[in-house]
Amino acid sequence: MDTALLIDTIRLTPVLMADPPLLNTQGVHQPYTPRLVVEVVTRSGASGVGETYGDGKYLELARPLAEALPGRSVSDVNGLFALADQVCGDSRAADERVDAGGLRGVQTAAKLRLSVVSAFEVACLDALGKALGLPVHALLGGKVRDSVEYSAYLFHRWAAHPEGGESDDWGAALDPAGVVAQARRFEREHGFGSFKLKGGVFEPDREIAAVLALAEAFPGRPLRLDPNGAWSVETALYAADRLEGVLEYLEDPVSGTGRMAEVAAGSGIPLATNMCVTTFSEVPEAFARDAVRIVLSDHHYWGGLYRTRELAAVCRTYGVGLSMHSNTHLGVSLAAMTHVAATVPGLKYACDSHYPWQAEDVITVRHTFRNGRLAVSDAPGLGVELDRDRLAVLHRRWLEDDGSMRDRDDAAAMRRAEPGWRTPAVPRW
Amino acid sequence: MDTALLIDTIRLTPVLMADPPLLNTQGVHQPYTPRLVVEVVTRSGASGVGETYGDGKYLELARPLAEALPGRSVSDVNGLFALADQVCGDSRAADERVDAGGLRGVQTAAKLRLSVVSAFEVACLDALGKALGLPVHALLGGKVRDSVEYSAYLFHRWAAHPEGGESDDWGAALDPAGVVAQARRFEREHGFGSFKLKGGVFEPDREIAAVLALAEAFPGRPLRLDPNGAWSVETALYAADRLEGVLEYLEDPVSGTGRMAEVAAGSGIPLATNMCVTTFSEVPEAFARDAVRIVLSDHHYWGGLYRTRELAAVCRTYGVGLSMHSNTHLGVSLAAMTHVAATVPGLKYACDSHYPWQAEDVITVRHTFRNGRLAVSDAPGLGVELDRDRLAVLHRRWLEDDGSMRDRDDAAAMRRAEPGWRTPAVPRW
Repeated sequence: MDTALLIDTIRLTPVLMADPPLLNTQGVHQPYTPRLVVEVVTRSGASGVGETYGDGKYLELARPLAEALPGRSVSDVNGLFALADQVCGDSRAADERVDAGGLRGVQTAAKLRLSVVSAFEVACLDALGKALGLPVHALLGGKVRDSVEYSAYLFHRWAAHPEGGESDDWGAALDPAGVVAQARRFEREHGFGSFKLKGGVFEPDREIAAVLALAEAFPGRPLRLDPNGAWSVETALYAADRLEGVLEYLEDPVSGTGRMAEVAAGSGIPLATNMCVTTFSEVPEAFARDAVRIVLSDHHYWGGLYRTRELAAVCRTYGVGLSMHSNTHLGVSLAAMTHVAATVPGLKYACDSHYPWQAEDVITVRHTFRNGRLAVSDAPGLGVELDRDRLAVLHRRWLEDDGSMRDRDDAAAMRRAEPGWRTPAVPRW
Repeated sequence: MDTALLIDTIRLTPVLMADPPLLNTQGVHQPYTPRLVVEVVTRSGASGVGETYGDGKYLELARPLAEALPGRSVSDVNGLFALADQVCGDSRAADERVDAGGLRGVQTAAKLRLSVVSAFEVACLDALGKALGLPVHALLGGKVRDSVEYSAYLFHRWAAHPEGGESDDWGAALDPAGVVAQARRFEREHGFGSFKLKGGVFEPDREIAAVLALAEAFPGRPLRLDPNGAWSVETALYAADRLEGVLEYLEDPVSGTGRMAEVAAGSGIPLATNMCVTTFSEVPEAFARDAVRIVLSDHHYWGGLYRTRELAAVCRTYGVGLSMHSNTHLGVSLAAMTHVAATVPGLKYACDSHYPWQAEDVITVRHTFRNGRLAVSDAPGLGVELDRDRLAVLHRRWLEDDGSMRDRDDAAAMRRAEPGWRTPAVPRW
């Protein structure tokens, strides 16, 4: 094996990136969201970058993995899982639930570990591609399309964070008219042809009205609504009844595979999920019960780009559709998503991305959506380059933070506006 | 994209390789078996090799694909499937059954096409690896083991073909004592630790007796029996009752997913298959009905090494075991099998290979089993080199053949010894 591909150095850089006051069922996005930037440098000087969640629990897992990697080849990505099992703590506890906050469904240490591995895998593939002169998609067998479609990710939102944070000119969107105005700007600026509204924020009728307003404003365009599991089965069936023929799919209207299966059985709307199917072990029950028709993959959840392709194969085998989920992320992960999406046959649903909401990045050239699509890069690796000045600025923000932003907590952020706010019990409606 | 990786030339070389008189339920192996050697040469002169079935129906599909490939990158293996659909005839007929002879279960044009694609995919990966200085396993994410275990593939056989063919010194094996003697020689020469007997040749009690004799001769060793679907459900349950606790698994005792499920429900022996699950579309029913506990993958059937890894992921997701099936093959395919097997986590069953029966090869250095295992090569590409003189000899044999060997037909071969022989109806017993 070529020693030039052996890992010499790993750099972990936690950052805080600005995030607008986007509302979801847990609360509101913090003014700054933690992310972890992982850099891998080979002995020959090829470097690669990956990113993942940056909360403390992820950092704790990333550090021992970073220490164990020097001396291994960047081509050895299949071996990362066993290595992570070995160095990232007690594997017997891997299935125990961990409170990582947020909207990821049931959390376990094993799931967190996969999210950490994903950043190292992407960084290794980026470095490998740069060392070989091949784009990451070619390391995954080659692209089957030249561009990847993304959808506009619409949010109910405030005009500004109640205290601190960066400002933007989007203004508030708290009713159907505000959502439609936001969608029009997304269409104008990025050309998006399909729209997803984050739900679970207001009472269901108000969100149904927002979807109907979108349908009227954009006739024939694919629309989606994602209440993040906040509804009861009864509410979900009520909404499905009103939105059948209007929505392309309804995403996680209820939480848990059993309730999703009930909704699926009782309505004609295809259900999608990034909450009840987030690991391979959750697949068989969900597929056997016909609980979901579309899985929203996320390479952070599933353990990287190779695993995402494996998930795609599982879905294809069972006739289940595939699209992609997104959380607040930088341009590094968007590049990774685009490379893997380019290699997956039959990807007929536009992928989600928060990227248009993120004014800050750590790459030198921001991604540009044209007609709602990103071109698949044929440059070596991911085709992005770290902007070290920007990385330093965002890292300094993390260093100087008093600790209040280093773990994402949308409920805590909401309490700054509504002191009595608690994470709502599910089902909320 | 690097133009050095673009395909300049494709060479298709059909060959006839010597094959001993191994018996199966259809008849007997021909003195010579057709294989197709596929060579891919890039503009920079990197060359890669793959192999697949060489019967006329495969050659017909390989030729248009070979013509369509120059100018494409050897890294673009995901794109081979759409290309094959496009150039290899009418895709509407892809699900129609085709008589390709042999023991592959239900044949369709789509399955034949995948077998053809597999050889081009392997040749592309070999060339890519050679161009980049990376072993094929590294192009699949890297090996997770340094050697791959194979099992001894035992056959009832004659000492010699009734007319023509090459001779060997194995002698006949037509009863339990003969099978045990064969197993002892396999163990001595190659160190195999597990044994599979091809069944479906003699009445079940005689084959059960052979397995019991192996169990007595090799206590504690994994044993398998493969009647190739020749039995009725009743016979299979009878055999399973006698062999429970003796066999590691029973392979394709009956044909068809429904009958396999009946046998599985009525016995405690794990069932394996390379007949009722040979494409992704056959997976859901077989898994839902618990028809099989182990899928014997075959990169020729499934469309190459990437697809084999995808099958492994599907099996892992559903808790179904994986091993590997083999037909008569050269050292090129054995190298490909070993590379992909090295990358699959949890491969706990030894793989099948006919290789020890094959005295002829087209590579310069034959593979050597040590303790029943093959070391995973870290040389660039597959780690094998074509022996052009040997390739020419085997190709000349194909050119000079009167047509009787160019399509494998084990029943026709059997008719040379037993003029009245017909392919037995299933179930045979």
